[in-house]
Amino acid sequence: MPKEQTIKTRLKLLRQKLDKKNLNCLLVTQPANITYLTGFTGDDSWVIITERSAYLLTDSRYTEQAQKQCPACKIIERKKSLPEAAAKIINSGKSVKTAGLEIAVKLGVFRRLKNNIKAKIKTEADLIENIRTIKDKQEIKHIEAAAEIAAKALNETKKYFKPNITENQFAGRLDFEIRKLGAKNCFETIAAFGPNGSRPHHQPGKRTLKKNDTILIDFGVKFKSYCCDITRCFAVGKASSLFKQVYQAVKESQAAAINSIKPGVELSDVDTAARGIIAGYDLPVYKHGTGHGLGLEVHEKPFISKKTKTKIKTGMIFTIEPGIYIPSQIGIRIEDDVLVTKTGCKVLSKACPK
Amino acid sequence: MPKEQTIKTRLKLLRQKLDKKNLNCLLVTQPANITYLTGFTGDDSWVIITERSAYLLTDSRYTEQAQKQCPACKIIERKKSLPEAAAKIINSGKSVKTAGLEIAVKLGVFRRLKNNIKAKIKTEADLIENIRTIKDKQEIKHIEAAAEIAAKALNETKKYFKPNITENQFAGRLDFEIRKLGAKNCFETIAAFGPNGSRPHHQPGKRTLKKNDTILIDFGVKFKSYCCDITRCFAVGKASSLFKQVYQAVKESQAAAINSIKPGVELSDVDTAARGIIAGYDLPVYKHGTGHGLGLEVHEKPFISKKTKTKIKTGMIFTIEPGIYIPSQIGIRIEDDVLVTKTGCKVLSKACPK
Repeated sequence: MPKEQTIKTRLKLLRQKLDKKNLNCLLVTQPANITYLTGFTGDDSWVIITERSAYLLTDSRYTEQAQKQCPACKIIERKKSLPEAAAKIINSGKSVKTAGLEIAVKLGVFRRLKNNIKAKIKTEADLIENIRTIKDKQEIKHIEAAAEIAAKALNETKKYFKPNITENQFAGRLDFEIRKLGAKNCFETIAAFGPNGSRPHHQPGKRTLKKNDTILIDFGVKFKSYCCDITRCFAVGKASSLFKQVYQAVKESQAAAINSIKPGVELSDVDTAARGIIAGYDLPVYKHGTGHGLGLEVHEKPFISKKTKTKIKTGMIFTIEPGIYIPSQIGIRIEDDVLVTKTGCKVLSKACPK
Repeated sequence: MPKEQTIKTRLKLLRQKLDKKNLNCLLVTQPANITYLTGFTGDDSWVIITERSAYLLTDSRYTEQAQKQCPACKIIERKKSLPEAAAKIINSGKSVKTAGLEIAVKLGVFRRLKNNIKAKIKTEADLIENIRTIKDKQEIKHIEAAAEIAAKALNETKKYFKPNITENQFAGRLDFEIRKLGAKNCFETIAAFGPNGSRPHHQPGKRTLKKNDTILIDFGVKFKSYCCDITRCFAVGKASSLFKQVYQAVKESQAAAINSIKPGVELSDVDTAARGIIAGYDLPVYKHGTGHGLGLEVHEKPFISKKTKTKIKTGMIFTIEPGIYIPSQIGIRIEDDVLVTKTGCKVLSKACPK
């Protein structure tokens, strides 16, 4: 749970942004943004940030939890729907001329809000998401802890790399080890054996582990609401020359990206660095992004691609995850989580076995 | 995976609805609706249903999977964003005058679609969700199988009701047993010990199991894309008189609701039946709904409350889950999944230990 001082700092930063945009309040509907601004981790709740207060609109299932988690908020146990309850509070603020609204809201919800709110509504993208790209000390600590748990869990689960274990069993065992360490998955673990690795988002199934298989594991741990995201590949038995060649290219690609990271550099240049190496090997260049931000969500800003127009800043945490996929043959991806420091970056997921 | 004939039946039903509403096509953006209409289970993909075709718009991560899962679809591997790719297809249909769009779409996405689509856009709510409320044989089989796995997993995990196990460890063990049976959770397992049960959506933590504790377990299993959702309560050691009284009231409340179910009855009457019993005991009546539909999503239509204006139909599957919550003291909820038959209903989760 963030400290009350941390919450205050975040609200202050947000209010400065609202002020610049002449917004008298902001209706926050996205769960990760709500957790960031209040500490609340339940569902079906919204937050309204006004010039002086933070209102948490929840229902009877979460009232007790909200009271514990959000000492800085005014907790409203709503009887009506979220749009109606939110409109009531916004309408009660007499000085509210323009109300901000997250553009991620659903169209149907937007229409109901528009019908009920008297003030002018202005939609905003990424106001809080941009603040969230720079992590504070406690957030960094939680992500580091998540990566440590991931390393321990994978080390423990590697013992189960035995003939005939299925992808599903392996993924289940890894998830269980994560739970035993007091954490949980932040997305469905991908375990792909053999050529299944060539589908970057393969769903684990009944495929059993065979001699000389390639194993691809892509998994994430959530600890104290913060995520890590790691991919590792292994060769069972003797690595084929194809495995060796492809693995080497991905490894070099990732190293080139990581070496290019420091404050001030364009994220698109990191993307170019990673892809350049693979193209240089004349191997198929991956079509997904080179990485993404990590924090309360496992995929958050910044997203790293050739189109990204964002300069790297100290305190950002993101993945670097190039891959090479040859359909029906092999898929290799290596994914680590890095924290941008003043002079370069620190790999937070180093302890995870390769 | 649904059979090709099943997919055809579903598409036919949907096209009849589109026809009645004078829609020349429908853009489907909600994952469960996409799975229902195509069999596809990946992410970040949309479907366009035209008068003659079904287009699946996906990206390179899912192309292989889509080709396997959706023989009835035209697979489009998009290079641009989903709204741009969708607009391109819709614009290419020369006879498309009015395009339907699910109202659950996000506002930002809606605006991008509006800027790119030449046809008139009409938003629609629940077109596919309403079709989904009536389950076919294969869907019923999958939900029954999910409930059987849930029963087996809970029976196995009950062995771990031992002093000092934490809520988190218990939940982790249950999830692992589910995985070992070839399935997975469809939401985060709730394990609440002692007074924690009074928070209907408690998140499992470090609370250890103590002598004479009440245990509340709310969990769901997803098997072949279909969900079950079950809640059970147990007393450790000797049940207190409070436990006995509250448990009895919830049990009777659930039985009253279940006995009131048959085709033609209003769902709001089922709600009234359940709440009436608890009010009769002069115990606090739960503030959440009495139940919800189950299928590809763990919460789907119909939702059962006093406001529901839906008559029960044969083939519906929903939960019945009354509860009594006394803050800081006790929380009891009993949740079962029922299938509406021609004459009443069948409890699918009977095997799950009580």
